[in-house]
Amino acid sequence: MLSSLIRKLQGFLESTLWSVFITSVILINSACLGLETIKFIHKYFGEILSIIDYICLGIFVVEVALRILAYGLKFFIGRDWGWNWFDFIIVGVSLFVVGGLAVLRAFRVIRIFRLLSVIPTMRLVSVAMLHTIPSMISIMVLLIIFYYIYGVLCANLFGEAFPQWFGDLGDSFYTLFQIMTLESWSMGIVRPIMEVYPWAWAVFVSFICIVSLIVLNLIVGVVVESIAEMKQMREENTQNKQNISQDSKHPAQNLNSKAM
Amino acid sequence: MLSSLIRKLQGFLESTLWSVFITSVILINSACLGLETIKFIHKYFGEILSIIDYICLGIFVVEVALRILAYGLKFFIGRDWGWNWFDFIIVGVSLFVVGGLAVLRAFRVIRIFRLLSVIPTMRLVSVAMLHTIPSMISIMVLLIIFYYIYGVLCANLFGEAFPQWFGDLGDSFYTLFQIMTLESWSMGIVRPIMEVYPWAWAVFVSFICIVSLIVLNLIVGVVVESIAEMKQMREENTQNKQNISQDSKHPAQNLNSKAM
Amino acid sequence: MLSSLIRKLQGFLESTLWSVFITSVILINSACLGLETIKFIHKYFGEILSIIDYICLGIFVVEVALRILAYGLKFFIGRDWGWNWFDFIIVGVSLFVVGGLAVLRAFRVIRIFRLLSVIPTMRLVSVAMLHTIPSMISIMVLLIIFYYIYGVLCANLFGEAFPQWFGDLGDSFYTLFQIMTLESWSMGIVRPIMEVYPWAWAVFVSFICIVSLIVLNLIVGVVVESIAEMKQMREENTQNKQNISQDSKHPAQNLNSKAM
Amino acid sequence: MLSSLIRKLQGFLESTLWSVFITSVILINSACLGLETIKFIHKYFGEILSIIDYICLGIFVVEVALRILAYGLKFFIGRDWGWNWFDFIIVGVSLFVVGGLAVLRAFRVIRIFRLLSVIPTMRLVSVAMLHTIPSMISIMVLLIIFYYIYGVLCANLFGEAFPQWFGDLGDSFYTLFQIMTLESWSMGIVRPIMEVYPWAWAVFVSFICIVSLIVLNLIVGVVVESIAEMKQMREENTQNKQNISQDSKHPAQNLNSKAM
Repeated sequence: MLSSLIRKLQGFLESTLWSVFITSVILINSACLGLETIKFIHKYFGEILSIIDYICLGIFVVEVALRILAYGLKFFIGRDWGWNWFDFIIVGVSLFVVGGLAVLRAFRVIRIFRLLSVIPTMRLVSVAMLHTIPSMISIMVLLIIFYYIYGVLCANLFGEAFPQWFGDLGDSFYTLFQIMTLESWSMGIVRPIMEVYPWAWAVFVSFICIVSLIVLNLIVGVVVESIAEMKQMREENTQNKQNISQDSKHPAQNLNSKAM
Repeated sequence: MLSSLIRKLQGFLESTLWSVFITSVILINSACLGLETIKFIHKYFGEILSIIDYICLGIFVVEVALRILAYGLKFFIGRDWGWNWFDFIIVGVSLFVVGGLAVLRAFRVIRIFRLLSVIPTMRLVSVAMLHTIPSMISIMVLLIIFYYIYGVLCANLFGEAFPQWFGDLGDSFYTLFQIMTLESWSMGIVRPIMEVYPWAWAVFVSFICIVSLIVLNLIVGVVVESIAEMKQMREENTQNKQNISQDSKHPAQNLNSKAM
Repeated sequence: MLSSLIRKLQGFLESTLWSVFITSVILINSACLGLETIKFIHKYFGEILSIIDYICLGIFVVEVALRILAYGLKFFIGRDWGWNWFDFIIVGVSLFVVGGLAVLRAFRVIRIFRLLSVIPTMRLVSVAMLHTIPSMISIMVLLIIFYYIYGVLCANLFGEAFPQWFGDLGDSFYTLFQIMTLESWSMGIVRPIMEVYPWAWAVFVSFICIVSLIVLNLIVGVVVESIAEMKQMREENTQNKQNISQDSKHPAQNLNSKAM
Repeated sequence: MLSSLIRKLQGFLESTLWSVFITSVILINSACLGLETIKFIHKYFGEILSIIDYICLGIFVVEVALRILAYGLKFFIGRDWGWNWFDFIIVGVSLFVVGGLAVLRAFRVIRIFRLLSVIPTMRLVSVAMLHTIPSMISIMVLLIIFYYIYGVLCANLFGEAFPQWFGDLGDSFYTLFQIMTLESWSMGIVRPIMEVYPWAWAVFVSFICIVSLIVLNLIVGVVVESIAEMKQMREENTQNKQNISQDSKHPAQNLNSKAM
């Protein structure tokens, strides 16, 4: 009898109605979190919004608890374990964050990330995006090696004269990230440095050129990989269709088509 | 007899001559609107330009009226309803705007958009561009979710200390859009913030990385989609050609080719 | 006898030796023009460099004259008329420019462009680059229409309050070009404007979004077009190889292969 | 007996254990070099880090010496001569640099580049990246020609009025590189110049447009080249599979498949 209750609960949790309800709760919570940032509304409706916020958090906690109840250990190691852990961690962090300081409370917004796990299309897109990462990893490591070398180099070379940009390794990495995005790299950073070290351009121009080359290869890699995947899928589709259409054909035809 | 008049009117409106005439009117109107912005010309020829402008608007109104007369309800729900509504709204807004204040009057330029609906090539290009949007929608929603979360987060975290950038949700979204385009993100925004909150780089660097990843996926998606479409079209072309060339062939050959 | 002289002259002008000589002259001239910009060298070797410069120009004039002599009217309307006109105009402009003011004299550098017409690989690359332009034209017209509309709109809206950026149509176009490259668009231009017109962001954010979409389509268009061309070429290659390899085969095989 | 010793040494140097050991030494050395840049650590642990650094350098020298001993002349001209020279030069430069001034000592970080030659995946990625360069060379030369012409032109035109940006050819090239990356090109460079030479926009806008066109072609070239290579590889794979699967087939089938 308990197992029939659990099966009912599972059915309920997987129903469209429930998923629409949870999506609505997230959207309402998102709207509340957004409205709260507007001073006028915060002043007059702050308490109501705060209450709605607590109710939404309560619903999320109950939902995750129900799902753990319904699926037991499968929640953590079953088919959708990735998204389940995603939900579990987000709700956990939300609970932890809600009682904290103002800065921590600001991170309540991460609840909105649950939209990614609740809406099926968003799940697909997120997974597709994560699938492009493996093809980038090895080139990313290359980028990180260059990045680290230039970081240490700049900290050693310019750390003393320009402590605000290259004071220690952290500053150096941040400044190189800025240069990587080409933001104010010349007028803001390199021209002032060149007034002290006139050869400094060589370091930064080479850095920009190498990083551009690596990023170009990164993009090309992802494009080529995606096209190859698309082709794979289309060929498999074609193959399947052919197989289906040929099953009813004359064996003499199959002889020819197999040779293809 | 009335229906023959309407058919004549339709033929007239669809004639090349009429379309060339309307295109010329738009181009003349565009030139006038451009010339008006030059002070010297505005001073001496302002009235003449203003009169030409009114005449052009009159021609547009008459043209749309004639088309509604000629096609009746089909104007709004027929084959080209999209472009018809486009013309109708543009002329309507132009009429509304012309009597308004200086700021509103500036929006008379939207009439030039009618070039998109009058020149056939521009119609094709616009439609082709709009066709790339559906393949971007789901990834755009992902971008908007991240954008919204970071917008609320930044408004909460930095709203008090930097009201000019993150004062409310609107400011926050605008500033994040600026950071997304990498404009002065570090020297202008993040470095000043880091003087108050030294950990602020984590928020913005993660934002830039995530947005870059999403935009990369967006571009790759559009490229792959376009290549797939191109292939589809070329395969259909090849298929058609084969079918045509094989119609006159020996049936034994067709047997083989079908198996492909 | 004259025609044999002309044939000899043609052979001489088409010889590798002559082409290497002209390339060397251009490279030497380029080096001179570069060295002249360095103050120290300009002071002590200015006259020598100036004389070398005149000699090089003389050689270019003689070369073009010889080619016109050798090919007659074919120089202007023959097979390579494009590159011939290119050389003719560059040498003509160089002659005109050399006697002018300091500003005009600076344009002597355009002679270096002759490297494009003298080195065969550069010819191929230039032609390949020009071949990508037709596939961009229609989308470029779309970009220009939007650009023009926004240019007029901004001149009307912000011309009075910000004459340095939107004073007349020219200023407006220049500023929009700057915004299109995302250079200081927010901190430099839009934030100051928003202090007078708080709604100004809508104009510029929409402009950036539309331009980004158009540029994305432009890039995708060129990529897809180039891939299609590459495929065309490879298919033709494969076809040719097949035809060659099949000529020596049994007709029964050809029957099957034709059906493909 | 000596040759058996050498063979043993070769086996030892090619063993996974040795390669893991060298990788660890590089990683430890990288960490030391990074930690040294942090003032707090440099103060208290500077000497220890310095000793570790010398030990690591010693290991690198010994490793390269052993490899030269083991492979003799093959080290420099054998199969992996590229990577061997790479290691040899890096260790050589490290030795030279270590006894130098502070500025030179900063270049000790180039040892970290040995990660590229020690980790097999990094070797593959580096080689793959270098393979994309040949397809870019001819278009790169085109870029350099334009770059040089504009460099000389700007030095001549604006050198006197703006010596800080276009003082000599070097300054001019650096400033054009900055403009190429679109960093502060308008607000920082061109607008101030336009106050002296109002026509200056034409030079820089044309430069940006041409460079953008060339870079677009560069990217498209690399993408198309990579896709073509991917296809080549996949076709060869398919071919191989077909050949394998057909070897065991009936000769009548092969007749058909050959015709393909």
